[in-house]
Amino acid sequence: MTTTATTTTPPVTVSTPSDREIRIERIFAAPRALVWRAMTDPALVAQWWGRGNQLVIERDERVRGGHWRYVEHAGGESHGFEGRYAEVVPPERVVRTFEWDGMPGHVALETATLEDLGDGRTRLVSVSLFHTVADRDGMLHSGMEGGIAQSYAALDRVLATLA
Amino acid sequence: MTTTATTTTPPVTVSTPSDREIRIERIFAAPRALVWRAMTDPALVAQWWGRGNQLVIERDERVRGGHWRYVEHAGGESHGFEGRYAEVVPPERVVRTFEWDGMPGHVALETATLEDLGDGRTRLVSVSLFHTVADRDGMLHSGMEGGIAQSYAALDRVLATLA
Repeated sequence: MTTTATTTTPPVTVSTPSDREIRIERIFAAPRALVWRAMTDPALVAQWWGRGNQLVIERDERVRGGHWRYVEHAGGESHGFEGRYAEVVPPERVVRTFEWDGMPGHVALETATLEDLGDGRTRLVSVSLFHTVADRDGMLHSGMEGGIAQSYAALDRVLATLA
Repeated sequence: MTTTATTTTPPVTVSTPSDREIRIERIFAAPRALVWRAMTDPALVAQWWGRGNQLVIERDERVRGGHWRYVEHAGGESHGFEGRYAEVVPPERVVRTFEWDGMPGHVALETATLEDLGDGRTRLVSVSLFHTVADRDGMLHSGMEGGIAQSYAALDRVLATLA
């Protein structure tokens, strides 16, 4: 399956390389060092990850073995997300686990790679591996695609302020 | 593959139901309520999980979404293990994630079930599901079988004191 969410910003391409994976691809109109900074500096992550909702970064220890925990506040509700870093290789690669409080124990392993396209743009490829097909399908049908498009559009705006 | 570690205590049977799973079976000569207690009361877990090594239970919130973290101290080294509870159904079922500090991001989902055998004995079946075949094989060849046999022999001794 491959679908493309068309917006006024660059498209997000979502595909399923295997029955337990989701692959997300998005190009950013900014150099890799800047995209890396916007995706790893907690003060900047707080500006785009929540898509306009308040995001509290309780922990974000970006080293191998470090933990992260973000809590998004929206409409009187809070949603926590957390995991642990397996690999942090600036400015190109982060591997970490991802777990939503609403489904504890359902852990995805995310491998995010930033590729310098050589023309001032950067390609992000993120592959998430789930324990089961059901976990993968649950994420796929959670409305994630629209949420990710919104997050990355907000990230575009953060990148514009850094340029 | 099925192998049985023969000791003076009941055997631990280790098998691989699929290429990403490890199944462990062990019978305990104690009623289920007692086995449940010895496997869930932190003060008792500290007496057997570490196989004689000092075990510090930093966290053990046995509710859905709760976290656990155990640190084993041996020979001047410390080894941390942690995860999160997905399901806790006394006295028969616990589902939680399992991650060793030495391989952060390599997370197994463990489903442990206690079956009342009706004759004062209890069967433990624990199935661990890994993200990859390599993770599963790494665990399988880590010497886990001997370690588990030692832990469960220590658990037998704890059960004897509770009987």
